Amino acid sequence: MTFIEKLNHSWCESNSLLMLGLDPNPDRFPAELSGRSGAIFEFCKGIIDAAATFACGVKPQIAYFSANRAEDQLEALCGYIRDHHPKLPIVLDAKRGDIGATAEQYAREAFERYQADAVTVNPYMGFDSLEPFLAWRDKGVAVLCRTSNPGGSDLQFVKSSNDKPLYIHVAELVSRRWNTNGQCALVVGATFPEEIGKVRQRVGDMPLLIPGIGAQGGDIRATVAAGRDSRGAGMMISSSRAILYASPEDDWREAAARIARATRDAINAAR
Amino acid sequence: MTFIEKLNHSWCESNSLLMLGLDPNPDRFPAELSGRSGAIFEFCKGIIDAAATFACGVKPQIAYFSANRAEDQLEALCGYIRDHHPKLPIVLDAKRGDIGATAEQYAREAFERYQADAVTVNPYMGFDSLEPFLAWRDKGVAVLCRTSNPGGSDLQFVKSSNDKPLYIHVAELVSRRWNTNGQCALVVGATFPEEIGKVRQRVGDMPLLIPGIGAQGGDIRATVAAGRDSRGAGMMISSSRAILYASPEDDWREAAARIARATRDAINAAR
Repeated sequence: MTFIEKLNHSWCESNSLLMLGLDPNPDRFPAELSGRSGAIFEFCKGIIDAAATFACGVKPQIAYFSANRAEDQLEALCGYIRDHHPKLPIVLDAKRGDIGATAEQYAREAFERYQADAVTVNPYMGFDSLEPFLAWRDKGVAVLCRTSNPGGSDLQFVKSSNDKPLYIHVAELVSRRWNTNGQCALVVGATFPEEIGKVRQRVGDMPLLIPGIGAQGGDIRATVAAGRDSRGAGMMISSSRAILYASPEDDWREAAARIARATRDAINAAR
Repeated sequence: MTFIEKLNHSWCESNSLLMLGLDPNPDRFPAELSGRSGAIFEFCKGIIDAAATFACGVKPQIAYFSANRAEDQLEALCGYIRDHHPKLPIVLDAKRGDIGATAEQYAREAFERYQADAVTVNPYMGFDSLEPFLAWRDKGVAVLCRTSNPGGSDLQFVKSSNDKPLYIHVAELVSRRWNTNGQCALVVGATFPEEIGKVRQRVGDMPLLIPGIGAQGGDIRATVAAGRDSRGAGMMISSSRAILYASPEDDWREAAARIARATRDAINAAR
């Protein structure tokens, strides 16, 4: 099954557009995990087992694993998800981008080592930097377009000569030229719903990966109104910290489940 | 000592502008290393011990380590360089870029885990995505500007409303606004010497990291003419594959040294 097929199935079966983001920061773990070896795996496993039923997919952020010398725990976690939550697509959030020969290695990292279903990539280096990812034809490739952070405007809002901002140029490049195999998605931040709408207008039913609700403060109603596709789906709306760190106490799993369910419901109420 | 001080010392003492790129691909290793555990470390160590005397610094490309589950070998390699070649700055080629909280983790990966002197980063997400790297004030931050690959033009050549291509916008943002602590460098490809010259005109004596000679075919004379700073230095001209894989036989170390020396000399002849 391709990433897009798996995602479509998951949207239907889970009745959720919530993407469960995994940004495991050991400084914020509950006391029972503090200082334990394998704590990153255990924390993520606890969150997934409690909250994954309210999500359409899982998005581990590789930086948190790499900074903590925990690539082995990320491998184990991806294996655990495949074994115990096989219907949930895994989107590796890595934002890779490099020349072709190097991008081949990054594609192997994402798809061979971690066996992710999709990976996030950075478009700054252009099409040939994404081709090695696209060569994995069953996999998904989510291209940064309009990011959720304030500084995103520094480049993404640069107006080209026909008055088109760079993020629109990227959306058009991806939808009209780069997505020849129908495996691409675009990353657009929930903090800018107006721009989500402009992207949606141009890309048909291409899936959008939308971070920025939760800790970053994006508005769910505006996001869903702007981002839904022709079937009322088409979005992976990601929340990480608001769910992961819902409680610092022993009830961290239940608290994560509660917030995940409430977030799913708030998204569905806006569909 | 800061990265910039270390680099200035190294340029003087080594009399070289060559940056030794480490893109270790086990498929291309000499037979004596084939299939051995720790082969990536051993290969890189062999290359460095043979060729580092002709270089002003070392640039490991992290993708090759990550794809091969070899982060521990990259840690060991960085430690080896610090112990045995302490004057050589280590530039970790990782091209990271993410929102602030995540970029903090990537900065820890580069500067705490690998103890690199500098890291390459991607500007697409804007200033706040680079701030966590810049907060390490002794470290260097090399920002992608005009990359050496053909597809680089897809975004980097987008003309803004005042007819300025995006890569010039990036060069100006970095030199005028982002480089408040004097720790930045820019990445510009040797495959586009005319654009190296345009960047140099705008950034004073800021160091340029220049990949694209060697396997990618960039012209050394044109690169040096366009890229040198007011002291005839200012460049880290990177070559990886042409040196690493100079010979597939038992003389791989000597062949690497020969090509590194010839490359250094060709660069110096053009200064």
